Amino acid sequence: MTRHEDLAHASAQAVRLAIREKRWPGTTHDLAQGHIQSNLAVLPAGHALDFLRFCLRNPKPCPLLDVTDTGDPEARQAAPGSDLRTDLSRYRVYRDGAAAGEVDDLRALWRPDHVGFVMGCSLSFDAALEAEGIPARSFRRGARIPVFTSNIACVPAGVFQGPLVVSLKPIPKPWVERVIAVTERYPLAHGGPVHVGDPAAIGVDPRRAEWTTGCEIGPDEVPVFWACGVTPQAVAMAAGIPEMFTHCVGHMFLTDRTLDDIRV
Amino acid sequence: MTRHEDLAHASAQAVRLAIREKRWPGTTHDLAQGHIQSNLAVLPAGHALDFLRFCLRNPKPCPLLDVTDTGDPEARQAAPGSDLRTDLSRYRVYRDGAAAGEVDDLRALWRPDHVGFVMGCSLSFDAALEAEGIPARSFRRGARIPVFTSNIACVPAGVFQGPLVVSLKPIPKPWVERVIAVTERYPLAHGGPVHVGDPAAIGVDPRRAEWTTGCEIGPDEVPVFWACGVTPQAVAMAAGIPEMFTHCVGHMFLTDRTLDDIRV
Repeated sequence: MTRHEDLAHASAQAVRLAIREKRWPGTTHDLAQGHIQSNLAVLPAGHALDFLRFCLRNPKPCPLLDVTDTGDPEARQAAPGSDLRTDLSRYRVYRDGAAAGEVDDLRALWRPDHVGFVMGCSLSFDAALEAEGIPARSFRRGARIPVFTSNIACVPAGVFQGPLVVSLKPIPKPWVERVIAVTERYPLAHGGPVHVGDPAAIGVDPRRAEWTTGCEIGPDEVPVFWACGVTPQAVAMAAGIPEMFTHCVGHMFLTDRTLDDIRV
Repeated sequence: MTRHEDLAHASAQAVRLAIREKRWPGTTHDLAQGHIQSNLAVLPAGHALDFLRFCLRNPKPCPLLDVTDTGDPEARQAAPGSDLRTDLSRYRVYRDGAAAGEVDDLRALWRPDHVGFVMGCSLSFDAALEAEGIPARSFRRGARIPVFTSNIACVPAGVFQGPLVVSLKPIPKPWVERVIAVTERYPLAHGGPVHVGDPAAIGVDPRRAEWTTGCEIGPDEVPVFWACGVTPQAVAMAAGIPEMFTHCVGHMFLTDRTLDDIRV
């Protein structure tokens, strides 16, 4: 097994290789620092055009970094030489809209009609804040960022429709403006917030999260909500499409793109 | 007939309506000023996924503003209430990769499997420069901006592949840096230049344009090249796809988006 400290400052390519060779079965938190971590969704080509339109119409939850050729498991734009079937350490399999298990390798399941979608994720986002001198780690509560289904509707595309899933960070008041300004410069890591302040205004009770554990907002904190990469999974599940593979939470795909590459 | 001066400062919606009602058969230069003018491509759904991937991989020549649902002639994101079959004053029809005539209405040709692609164009671009105090009109030579096939290869997607088509503006030396900086802020209007300086380096002879008339570069001018919206048409023609409709040169689609909306 490779150790976490060996991969923390490694290239994205080195991390993908460690995972491919089963030397790293863990999550990708803080690996290949400075590189953009991403969500993965693999769908049959028959659903790919509508899913792609969904992503284009909802760029905040679905910031596209790469869409593979049909049947091609390599993310040639975001990570040349990669293999989406082996370069993530854990995948989730959905069938007919329901979770149908987890695997650590997609090779046995991959077909010539599969299309891979690589979408920026909010792990990159914390790194962007840290890079700008904002102590993003200190804003975290527990191991997983709280995620909620909001009452904000996504723009539909074919069978894909439903509410926006949002992540919540309670931000100490003095940091709010700077956090907003920095995240707006990274649209491929979900960009600026979708809501600042009263959670009830977007149908959220911070203590009750459907997707994770909830959290308390302190008296000197402001709840700030960002579009979350869980959205396309939730929407695809709700549509009951026959088959979809995704990353497992925290087991992201490492791209060769850096924060500098995606800053606007 | 409506007069040009009545439409110059009209809303984009008013221009679309004037065209739809056959009150404006002309080009859209300087109409609905401040609004984003766009290229149109309509393809059968069977080619839409590959064409969409081509656009995503080549965002400089193909900056996507909207992709319609299959069979839906309304550009719901970029121009709610629009009708892509009637809201352009002149269309070109391609069959099997060859030009097959022009029409002023697509209604008789539109089928339930058609998908419309709306892509930002460089007319918006001059307005962006003028808005920043740069005398873009004074850089123009003649009625049409010179357009050339370069030796820069696009990133292929399925059957769609070929060289990047570029537009050329000779920019007086003192303006070059500012022009570059401003255009970089408008990626949906082709963004920053793809090449600055020696035309031969990208395979271009400024006096010989395939797509338009050429131009001379003055001694105090720098040739600056941008990705051109003719690229996707050229690529689709080269692929010999069975059917495609586009706008005619200068007869663009007016979107509701403004320069402020698309600035990054």
